[in-house]
Amino acid sequence: MAGSFFKGRFLSLFDYKTEKYIIAKNKKVGVLYRLIQLSIIGYIIGWVFVSKKGYQETDTAIQSSVVTKLKGVSVTNTSESGRLVWGPEDYVIPPQGEAVLFVVTNFLETPNQKLGYCAESPKVLDGHCRDDEDCEEEKMVIAGNGIKSGRCLRKDENSTGTCEIYGWCPIERKFKPRKPLLLNAENFTIYIKNFILFPKFQFSKSNVLETSDDSFLKKCRFDEQLYPYCPIFRLGDITRRAGYNFQDMATFGGSIGILIEWDCDLDKGYSNCNPHYHFTRLDISNNSISTGFNFRHTRYFKNAAGESYRSLFKVYGVRFNIMVHGKAGMFSIIPTAINVGSGLALMGAGAFFCDMVLLYLMKKSNSYRERKFEGPK
Amino acid sequence: MAGSFFKGRFLSLFDYKTEKYIIAKNKKVGVLYRLIQLSIIGYIIGWVFVSKKGYQETDTAIQSSVVTKLKGVSVTNTSESGRLVWGPEDYVIPPQGEAVLFVVTNFLETPNQKLGYCAESPKVLDGHCRDDEDCEEEKMVIAGNGIKSGRCLRKDENSTGTCEIYGWCPIERKFKPRKPLLLNAENFTIYIKNFILFPKFQFSKSNVLETSDDSFLKKCRFDEQLYPYCPIFRLGDITRRAGYNFQDMATFGGSIGILIEWDCDLDKGYSNCNPHYHFTRLDISNNSISTGFNFRHTRYFKNAAGESYRSLFKVYGVRFNIMVHGKAGMFSIIPTAINVGSGLALMGAGAFFCDMVLLYLMKKSNSYRERKFEGPK
Amino acid sequence: MAGSFFKGRFLSLFDYKTEKYIIAKNKKVGVLYRLIQLSIIGYIIGWVFVSKKGYQETDTAIQSSVVTKLKGVSVTNTSESGRLVWGPEDYVIPPQGEAVLFVVTNFLETPNQKLGYCAESPKVLDGHCRDDEDCEEEKMVIAGNGIKSGRCLRKDENSTGTCEIYGWCPIERKFKPRKPLLLNAENFTIYIKNFILFPKFQFSKSNVLETSDDSFLKKCRFDEQLYPYCPIFRLGDITRRAGYNFQDMATFGGSIGILIEWDCDLDKGYSNCNPHYHFTRLDISNNSISTGFNFRHTRYFKNAAGESYRSLFKVYGVRFNIMVHGKAGMFSIIPTAINVGSGLALMGAGAFFCDMVLLYLMKKSNSYRERKFEGPK
Repeated sequence: MAGSFFKGRFLSLFDYKTEKYIIAKNKKVGVLYRLIQLSIIGYIIGWVFVSKKGYQETDTAIQSSVVTKLKGVSVTNTSESGRLVWGPEDYVIPPQGEAVLFVVTNFLETPNQKLGYCAESPKVLDGHCRDDEDCEEEKMVIAGNGIKSGRCLRKDENSTGTCEIYGWCPIERKFKPRKPLLLNAENFTIYIKNFILFPKFQFSKSNVLETSDDSFLKKCRFDEQLYPYCPIFRLGDITRRAGYNFQDMATFGGSIGILIEWDCDLDKGYSNCNPHYHFTRLDISNNSISTGFNFRHTRYFKNAAGESYRSLFKVYGVRFNIMVHGKAGMFSIIPTAINVGSGLALMGAGAFFCDMVLLYLMKKSNSYRERKFEGPK
Repeated sequence: MAGSFFKGRFLSLFDYKTEKYIIAKNKKVGVLYRLIQLSIIGYIIGWVFVSKKGYQETDTAIQSSVVTKLKGVSVTNTSESGRLVWGPEDYVIPPQGEAVLFVVTNFLETPNQKLGYCAESPKVLDGHCRDDEDCEEEKMVIAGNGIKSGRCLRKDENSTGTCEIYGWCPIERKFKPRKPLLLNAENFTIYIKNFILFPKFQFSKSNVLETSDDSFLKKCRFDEQLYPYCPIFRLGDITRRAGYNFQDMATFGGSIGILIEWDCDLDKGYSNCNPHYHFTRLDISNNSISTGFNFRHTRYFKNAAGESYRSLFKVYGVRFNIMVHGKAGMFSIIPTAINVGSGLALMGAGAFFCDMVLLYLMKKSNSYRERKFEGPK
Repeated sequence: MAGSFFKGRFLSLFDYKTEKYIIAKNKKVGVLYRLIQLSIIGYIIGWVFVSKKGYQETDTAIQSSVVTKLKGVSVTNTSESGRLVWGPEDYVIPPQGEAVLFVVTNFLETPNQKLGYCAESPKVLDGHCRDDEDCEEEKMVIAGNGIKSGRCLRKDENSTGTCEIYGWCPIERKFKPRKPLLLNAENFTIYIKNFILFPKFQFSKSNVLETSDDSFLKKCRFDEQLYPYCPIFRLGDITRRAGYNFQDMATFGGSIGILIEWDCDLDKGYSNCNPHYHFTRLDISNNSISTGFNFRHTRYFKNAAGESYRSLFKVYGVRFNIMVHGKAGMFSIIPTAINVGSGLALMGAGAFFCDMVLLYLMKKSNSYRERKFEGPK
């Protein structure tokens, strides 16, 4: 009789016959007993062993290597730069295929800058002046582009002007992007090669299909169901999965997080350890989007006379940040023993709790106390 | 009577009447009882629930995006490079606004290097020679700058010379920096934009004030009390907060860690989840400062004839490493239940411990044993 | 008599005399008792206190700074690039001494590319054509190098040709590397400077010997036994320690992980906290090696007329990824108290388990039950 076997088990710690007596006399307490016992057993089996896999040793110190490669070209035509063809070697910064990469979607080139004298940009507050005394010589313009020469450049005597500076001239012009210049950027593809290693179990895997078919990786596109081992993504699809439109992000720039998650139960074998991809926009807080992502970089040249000149690029774009998380579990006797032990300790605590309920919190506890401390008559 | 209610509670597991008897007969043991009970209750309430917030589910898998932007210009004047204006596009390496960035504070340019033959630097041990036989042709100079041509260049027949090498000539000259050339670097400002996301709770926040006042972020400076949401720092202030003087670090270079900590109790609401900044110097061990931080980079040019030449820059500077840590907690029924259960288990253990003390360790335990095992007469 | 002292201890919770009786009557149950008691004590002392150092507070939030510096030169001689000397400023990408770095071991230069019209590479599937209609004007070539001009370039009318494109011409030629061009790369040395800080204990250390002997770090090589504080490694030794041959990796490229582990018991003092180095190949999964690691980067030039031209470099090489793990432990009263408490709780659970075994699982349990519930007659 499994029922009566269970009935007696947990209260036995205190008094087996008393238990029978209590349960017979007080139905409510009996129901409470069984509920507590069931919830403890449920907790141990359901939570500790099934949900938290308490019988497994885990390794969370995942070692990971991420290599990225972009493909696609785009053509831009601007008055400053002429007709330009952009390949991955130009629009991916840095070009060496790292886990954090920036894809140019918009830019402003200021070509042929030379060191010399010109007017500071009117956007810089500290560069405004009314006369030459506002432009103290050899002083830096705060948050500006150069060093003041001592002259204030004005249209006429009554207007406000800007200080003349020594710096890279001409100064970059004002630029408020309307739409991305690299229109095609949405169709660029990114190939994310991720190798992982769980050192404790000497288990390693890659997110790329192990195939002898070379052409597969040239044509395939990622699909959670069909091609989970083809880690090639269209940039437009990535932003769409993160919940945003690529063209909206491309104008001013933004930041996308790509999370690769490896949650591996190694007891189930090699083929059950699969990567899962999550996409989130990272430059957006609860209330508002920040105003984009841009930076400047330069290309330096020298003319025949040995004088330096440069092209200044202000580039807008989308930054991709590939993060790899993971843990692996495998059966091991030590955590199993520890969890079984803790479970039994908790059972003891449950019995203790039941006892306390009976002794103090129940109304009919008097008779129980008598029976417990006097012993059965 | 709460007192007598408590008195009986914990020993009841073993013998309620005995407890009263013991406490009456043996005051010391009674005091020990109450101390153990109090410390267990104190531990559960104080440590588990108040200090460790045991009633909360926590998320430590913070996702974070860091974007940095520097502002400020500096002018240098050296014999090799002439008068140069340095903007963020030049002194920040890499320029793309990453979480690990290097700010140039000192440099040595070796302009117009061409591939050709010249003497190896006398600093390189393997380049020293006494005659041509020490300079075996086509052999690399170990830790040197090129490949030996087979000739030993000496002032006169008796002196020690250096091998002639094929490499980028002229070789970089010896350089022991005295003071930083980018004097103004202390006044550069760094704007650190940090977005965080706790995926488990779908909670995201930024360290930048959500304001419609555009000019606020143009003028403000970080202040823990006044402007905690203005993440714009003067470089000199950062090193000062880390406990070092910027000009000292700037000469030979160094490394600064900026830790942004988000310790969020989401039960207290959105506005109580705030970033905290910590600044530490990272290139200093218990006993000594390492001798700085520098590296070399190049700019390549071609002359009209298509021949390559380059400028070699040895740059010294300060590296900033922005790290983001964080965890968030929110009330959840499961950890609460688990911690209450473990607490009760610990109470049972406490009672067990008291019992053992009474049975074996106390001198008057004989009478207790008798009472416990014989039952009250 | 330690024996009898122990005998009585754990069962005492339930019935001291019964225990004696049981052990006398039932030898098997007595042996089980002692085994369980021993395993619990062994678990608490051996596992919790000795193996897991349960008496220590731990800090796993290690703060770390890694600086790398490479030394060595190599000479290459190719038809496209002529005779070139490669220094660290050229072959390390990025050059700023980061924890993730790429060392060029093989390359293909495509010099003097200009924007213009030429035939698409035959490797690009989308560039193949049979007549001009296949090459729709102004359309990008998918995964190609430019924008179609509308013409199909064929040898004769019947053959398959490739579309003419507008892009950087000439297109990079086909290149299947046979052996690494930077033959000497195996002998390059990498100097890894790692500073760590455990903020909770304000403990910091470096992996570099704190010495006043400047020449030591110029000559030494890492040796686990002799020079554990000389973190200078030959690249060939690193790949050998990871189990691979450098020259094999150098041809197509690869990825190596260098793990620095700081497992510090601060109770044992400063000199017992030492770094340990582990080397693993990161681009290899259970079954196969991926086909290498390469990327493209460019150098831009301008001729006297202001027209842009560039050199495109396809570089193959080995990527080194330096990861720092660590934890530190120090004696603290709180974890000690918690672990002692949990240990006692587990002992209680052990006694409970023994009781259950006796009551239900042993054959002779009837007599025990009688004795337990009826009391000794």
